[in-house]
Amino acid sequence: MEVRVQEIIDHLTAHVKLQDNTVDQLISGSMVQLVSGVVVAFMPTQQVIERAVQQGANLIIAHEPPFYNHHSHTDWLTEDPVYQTKRNLIDEAGIAIYRCHDTIHQVQPDGITEGLVQALGWTSFLEQRKSEADILSFDSGMTVRQIAEHIKHTLQIEYVRVAGNLEMTCQRAAVLVGFRGNGNLTIPLLHNERLNLIIAGEGFEWETPEYIRDAVQQGRQQALIMIGHAESESSGMKLLAMKLDQAYPELPVTFVGEQPVYNVL
Amino acid sequence: MEVRVQEIIDHLTAHVKLQDNTVDQLISGSMVQLVSGVVVAFMPTQQVIERAVQQGANLIIAHEPPFYNHHSHTDWLTEDPVYQTKRNLIDEAGIAIYRCHDTIHQVQPDGITEGLVQALGWTSFLEQRKSEADILSFDSGMTVRQIAEHIKHTLQIEYVRVAGNLEMTCQRAAVLVGFRGNGNLTIPLLHNERLNLIIAGEGFEWETPEYIRDAVQQGRQQALIMIGHAESESSGMKLLAMKLDQAYPELPVTFVGEQPVYNVL
Repeated sequence: MEVRVQEIIDHLTAHVKLQDNTVDQLISGSMVQLVSGVVVAFMPTQQVIERAVQQGANLIIAHEPPFYNHHSHTDWLTEDPVYQTKRNLIDEAGIAIYRCHDTIHQVQPDGITEGLVQALGWTSFLEQRKSEADILSFDSGMTVRQIAEHIKHTLQIEYVRVAGNLEMTCQRAAVLVGFRGNGNLTIPLLHNERLNLIIAGEGFEWETPEYIRDAVQQGRQQALIMIGHAESESSGMKLLAMKLDQAYPELPVTFVGEQPVYNVL
Repeated sequence: MEVRVQEIIDHLTAHVKLQDNTVDQLISGSMVQLVSGVVVAFMPTQQVIERAVQQGANLIIAHEPPFYNHHSHTDWLTEDPVYQTKRNLIDEAGIAIYRCHDTIHQVQPDGITEGLVQALGWTSFLEQRKSEADILSFDSGMTVRQIAEHIKHTLQIEYVRVAGNLEMTCQRAAVLVGFRGNGNLTIPLLHNERLNLIIAGEGFEWETPEYIRDAVQQGRQQALIMIGHAESESSGMKLLAMKLDQAYPELPVTFVGEQPVYNVL
């Protein structure tokens, strides 16, 4: 059976209403091209694209953009050699890249948060699903250190960054993926949901962690585990790859992961 | 000799022209209050304010805001207990907090970048001062690992985050403090200034480090050392404290530092 890019995008976006300024778009390739195989990834890095070419896949579905800015602008990059090499590879190989960002966040429940909570084995702790976060209630408290080690082990990552007291016991936590780690989201949650732990992907260093620092200095029991943007969202894209593989059994669909972008030294 | 808050702010802002939407302002206290002592800090944390009170200082000059958002808005925090406790301490102790952010970045040369490059002992490597970055040329190349270890040692920090090959030898680097680590600044610099290393404070994870990852995958010699927002800017505030101490010998002026806001686990 022949499947075109348009059909897969229609499948992905079937039950969501995207805002007018959505970043979700076909960044390269054509809606009418026949799909030879699908690679799903957190980000269409140079390596992910090379892997797609090696596998004979010509559609990449990625959560983040290929060109180092959220809106996939390229006018500022036309003279840049890294951009040129990547762009040439994409164009010469005829790779269609579809940005699946707002779509998967607007699926009910949020497909990225769902993937992370599933990967952490915490579905049974789920108390409430909010648009920006899952609220978890741990029956028997675990310490921040135990939770951090569990996250590292289950996601197979080398490190997490922690603010607050590592030995504090946590009862209630929120999980916020991607760039939802800023104070405008986390600080009201801490107070309104009576949380003592935020687990987030990425956020400004001068917001949530500094709030936690002040809270601890005031004698409060609160902590933050920042796990990394990609590390918080890759599980959701892996889950999407599984769902696509079931929806299109005739197509090869694979998830391609990357190592964490930073090493800690 | 009596010194009022207004006089010190006039001194700080004497040679700069701030834009209309500057974040620099007196966040608490009054312009006419007599200054009993000055604490200079990267951020007016709970602990920094407590230290000022202990020292009998009633003016804090800080680079970043006290209330977990760049524009020091407080309307969203009125019910928040951490905010309330901090606000009460500030008001009851009569602490004036002056935000010195845009001012010190607009001094020529940028007072924050100057402080960092001095603290790293790299003034002799300085090739060019741009508004957003200092460009350094290392006579004898050092590896990324050696540079990272030097930064950790001189700034007394536990870790830095690195993208790219640790064993690569670097000849040309840019130093970008604070939140200047994003792709719109770093990527044109890498190309136009023929750099192989970016040393920055903080930036979006999906921009500069992902560019470096792609560049390395393409066989290019480029790397990134992300040292932390506070870690990149505290030296500049420490330098400001020294200058203020010389300008106001009759006033006690001290720099109060903080531990890095994150621990790596």
